[in-house]
Amino acid sequence: MQGTVLYGPGDVRFESRPAPTIIESTDVILRLAATCICGSDLWPYRGLQSIAGPAPMGHEYCGVVEEVGSGVKSIRPGQFVIGSFFASDNTCPHCHAGYQTSCQRKEFVGGAQAPLLRVPLAEGTLVATPGVPPEELLPSVLALSDVMGTGWFAADAAHVRPGATVVVVGDGAVGQLGVLSARQMGAERIIAMSRHEPRQQLAREFGATDIVADRGEAGVARIMELTRGIGADSVLECVGTQESMQQAIRSTRPGGFVGYVGVPHGVELDGERLFFAHVHLHGGPAPVRRYLPTLIGLVWERKIDPGKVFDLTLPLDQVAEGYRAMNERRAIKTLLRL
Amino acid sequence: MQGTVLYGPGDVRFESRPAPTIIESTDVILRLAATCICGSDLWPYRGLQSIAGPAPMGHEYCGVVEEVGSGVKSIRPGQFVIGSFFASDNTCPHCHAGYQTSCQRKEFVGGAQAPLLRVPLAEGTLVATPGVPPEELLPSVLALSDVMGTGWFAADAAHVRPGATVVVVGDGAVGQLGVLSARQMGAERIIAMSRHEPRQQLAREFGATDIVADRGEAGVARIMELTRGIGADSVLECVGTQESMQQAIRSTRPGGFVGYVGVPHGVELDGERLFFAHVHLHGGPAPVRRYLPTLIGLVWERKIDPGKVFDLTLPLDQVAEGYRAMNERRAIKTLLRL
Repeated sequence: MQGTVLYGPGDVRFESRPAPTIIESTDVILRLAATCICGSDLWPYRGLQSIAGPAPMGHEYCGVVEEVGSGVKSIRPGQFVIGSFFASDNTCPHCHAGYQTSCQRKEFVGGAQAPLLRVPLAEGTLVATPGVPPEELLPSVLALSDVMGTGWFAADAAHVRPGATVVVVGDGAVGQLGVLSARQMGAERIIAMSRHEPRQQLAREFGATDIVADRGEAGVARIMELTRGIGADSVLECVGTQESMQQAIRSTRPGGFVGYVGVPHGVELDGERLFFAHVHLHGGPAPVRRYLPTLIGLVWERKIDPGKVFDLTLPLDQVAEGYRAMNERRAIKTLLRL
Repeated sequence: MQGTVLYGPGDVRFESRPAPTIIESTDVILRLAATCICGSDLWPYRGLQSIAGPAPMGHEYCGVVEEVGSGVKSIRPGQFVIGSFFASDNTCPHCHAGYQTSCQRKEFVGGAQAPLLRVPLAEGTLVATPGVPPEELLPSVLALSDVMGTGWFAADAAHVRPGATVVVVGDGAVGQLGVLSARQMGAERIIAMSRHEPRQQLAREFGATDIVADRGEAGVARIMELTRGIGADSVLECVGTQESMQQAIRSTRPGGFVGYVGVPHGVELDGERLFFAHVHLHGGPAPVRRYLPTLIGLVWERKIDPGKVFDLTLPLDQVAEGYRAMNERRAIKTLLRL
């Protein structure tokens, strides 16, 4: 088959690769219906995260079960399924607590920017949809594999409650779906931090009530002004830089909640400042598996449309152009058709 | 009157000072029934925290209202009251959210190691007890002014629930009362980290089911062993050093909760490690005011006896010996009689 491999900064190739096969009895092989490029794929693409050698790319996927290992009973060939970027057994104590991305047997699922994908621990990892999604639902179904669940976890970790005042730091795909999630959870006021007009527009469509274009000190000052000096109840940090994290913490009221899902790059927190900020802090790799049944239901009932974050669709063999478009901020997120 | 003043490292004097007077109409003057020395008083005593000049010491107090400002209606002369180290108006948004130590008008209450004390924002700050406490209850009543409420906040911030496995890092007075609090909140297993035999003994009296004498890496390894590789549900950090904070975070299961109340000294948290630890983090200066009504009730009904943390009682004029005893770890906490 042909698959996507990153050779070095800016060097994405779509080339011949061995088709995946069943290795463990708990594996399945999926034939993907669609895949996409994640904001986190840009870290190694930009050379900001090193790779050990040529790296098969992609970790967001949905599709039809092609083949199952001998130990797989509850997942059957022909089913349409979604899974997350970490395979999990869904039976260990951490999975039971709802933290499947810290599963004691977790395994990264890579190489999804390709037509076929091996998924380990399939019974724990995959969730079947009510059927093959109609064409118009496919982007939203695919979004559940990572970006929607991550935005949802950000809002959940930030303890969004009905009537709450929420700030979302980051206007990428995760931040956008953080806005959608906060809206679903009943937030009254949702302030999106964004300086890009098309992204401001999308945030409004997803439910943002206010837009703040300022950043850093000025951004915090503006949030304080908008909240009459109190700060927000819940802040979603969807970037992962020192500046965005500080901005998130300082925009939160004492006793409020910061949910952070941007993988931290060079973030250091001063213990004493955090202490006197009096905030709750929770985050990490989103346990997407926990939310899949709920989110599949919301997509099927047309209550949420996370697929709107895909503002560029390309055939899979033009994957390199997809990376370029996201890197140059011409696209928020690229869907790859098969 | 005579009061306690710190002049520099190790130099505590009990000397003539002006008696406090009403300054604002919201002030009251208390005649203290007892006062004490806090673990945090040892930071400047040891020269680890600088002072601007001679500093009146003490911030834990209970006693009888002697005089009230013209604006004070709900507190009357003759009442026995308790307050916390931060005066708060109890009406601002942060107070309403239960974070009185972040009150928009907060004011530190200092100079309590003396017979008379001025308390600002008295109506918001002070809580009257059901009457003058009998002599044997006085230590427990005094403990509510800071150390008991701080241990309780640690357990509350660490989300202790019935049946939980809890670790308490720190065997000083706050850690000891963290053990008591976790017990009250229904924890099934309470592991106290302590290497001092008398403190281990006290922790057991307060409800610890296990004692771990190891620290750092070895301490974390022991907790993992005791929890079958899972980690604790709730960890109370009651020290405030880099080592104790790391130990707390690493002893917590993914999805578990760290409540931290030790004022951080030189603590830096690595964002990426915290992200993958997957824990909840909450702490800060304990909003003791929030808990006072509940805790007064528990003491009055003889359900808790936090006064047991006082293992040395001295007349107030021997305050300097009280500091020495705590500094040399001959005493956990010193009560000063008036």
